Amino acid sequence: MKISALSEHTGASVPTIKYYLREGLLPAGERSAPNQATYGEAHVRRIHLIRALTDVGGLSVADVKRVTEAIDKELPLSHAFEIAQSTVSEQVDPDSLDEDALATVDGVIADWACASDDSGRLAAARVVMNFRHTGQGASSSWLDAYAQAALVVAEADLDLVETRRDLETRAETVVVGTVLGDALFAALRRSAQAAASVRRYGYPGRQQ
Amino acid sequence: MKISALSEHTGASVPTIKYYLREGLLPAGERSAPNQATYGEAHVRRIHLIRALTDVGGLSVADVKRVTEAIDKELPLSHAFEIAQSTVSEQVDPDSLDEDALATVDGVIADWACASDDSGRLAAARVVMNFRHTGQGASSSWLDAYAQAALVVAEADLDLVETRRDLETRAETVVVGTVLGDALFAALRRSAQAAASVRRYGYPGRQQ
Repeated sequence: MKISALSEHTGASVPTIKYYLREGLLPAGERSAPNQATYGEAHVRRIHLIRALTDVGGLSVADVKRVTEAIDKELPLSHAFEIAQSTVSEQVDPDSLDEDALATVDGVIADWACASDDSGRLAAARVVMNFRHTGQGASSSWLDAYAQAALVVAEADLDLVETRRDLETRAETVVVGTVLGDALFAALRRSAQAAASVRRYGYPGRQQ
Repeated sequence: MKISALSEHTGASVPTIKYYLREGLLPAGERSAPNQATYGEAHVRRIHLIRALTDVGGLSVADVKRVTEAIDKELPLSHAFEIAQSTVSEQVDPDSLDEDALATVDGVIADWACASDDSGRLAAARVVMNFRHTGQGASSSWLDAYAQAALVVAEADLDLVETRRDLETRAETVVVGTVLGDALFAALRRSAQAAASVRRYGYPGRQQ
């Protein structure tokens, strides 16, 4: 299809598509005339991928470029996971954390055998520390529930990746799942809070 | 304590504290002289709360003002939940969603008795739709695992709120838990993916 049809199919404007092409987010079309190129289904999917990463995931164009490059290079999945995760998550400086917060997190995820520089471990410790600073503190049963839920979700993430056949699609699933998975969980958590409140108090969040 | 001591205790600069006071995020101190006020532990905690919401949660100052007002007004918890959630979550326009995506989500959370305009339901449907547009689709077992995990976390959230004694602290926990909970879960999910990969493949994410 021509660029105008690609625009109609995806809802992305022609200038936006040209921008993606220029920035290397979108592979070039097949040249059909000196000033014309044709695009296929792969381009439609890639544009939707870019939109999902920017609109739902809030990624910058530079971030999207990093993760789409990981897909295009057919990197081993371990690298794809690493790049997707490091792009999505802010890196927390270990020196900004106190020992107590790290020890609390390590207590909760003791049998996960995390590396000491694991970015999730550091980010979780920062949350625990921030929570404590507000004068409240997170209970260990609260943290345990989150850790247990995170394992359920992580296993489902790996299961989903295993259903994909080729390496490129698997890497795409890693990237999309990492970015959209956070948004999905946050959304379902909101609905679940309302549902759990109704069960417990007969009305959303109405215990006082 | 004086404003300079408050700054030392919290790590927030004096101009930043004055900005919080001016914007109404922080209650005024007790006037001790015509040009001087003293501050207490409640101010320390509130500054840490503001920092947690802005730094970890990425909330704007206007958003922080909305949620701290909810705390200060000692609104019923149902309102505190509502305000915290609507501040944190982007509102999704139902008209932007397709029927398929909504039906998929409704199938997964059928027994939650969600309202049709439940913001979590709409946001989840948007994720499902975006996922599908990338040409991949989210399997129902993947969605089920997320929903199950979200319920575990939601019950833990309510349990945590119930451990607090007074209404103000409860409202604070709702706000902090809503904002920091998303960050905590995303962090633990990263570590859990690495842990689950090691269990399954002997190395983080190394199946290919």
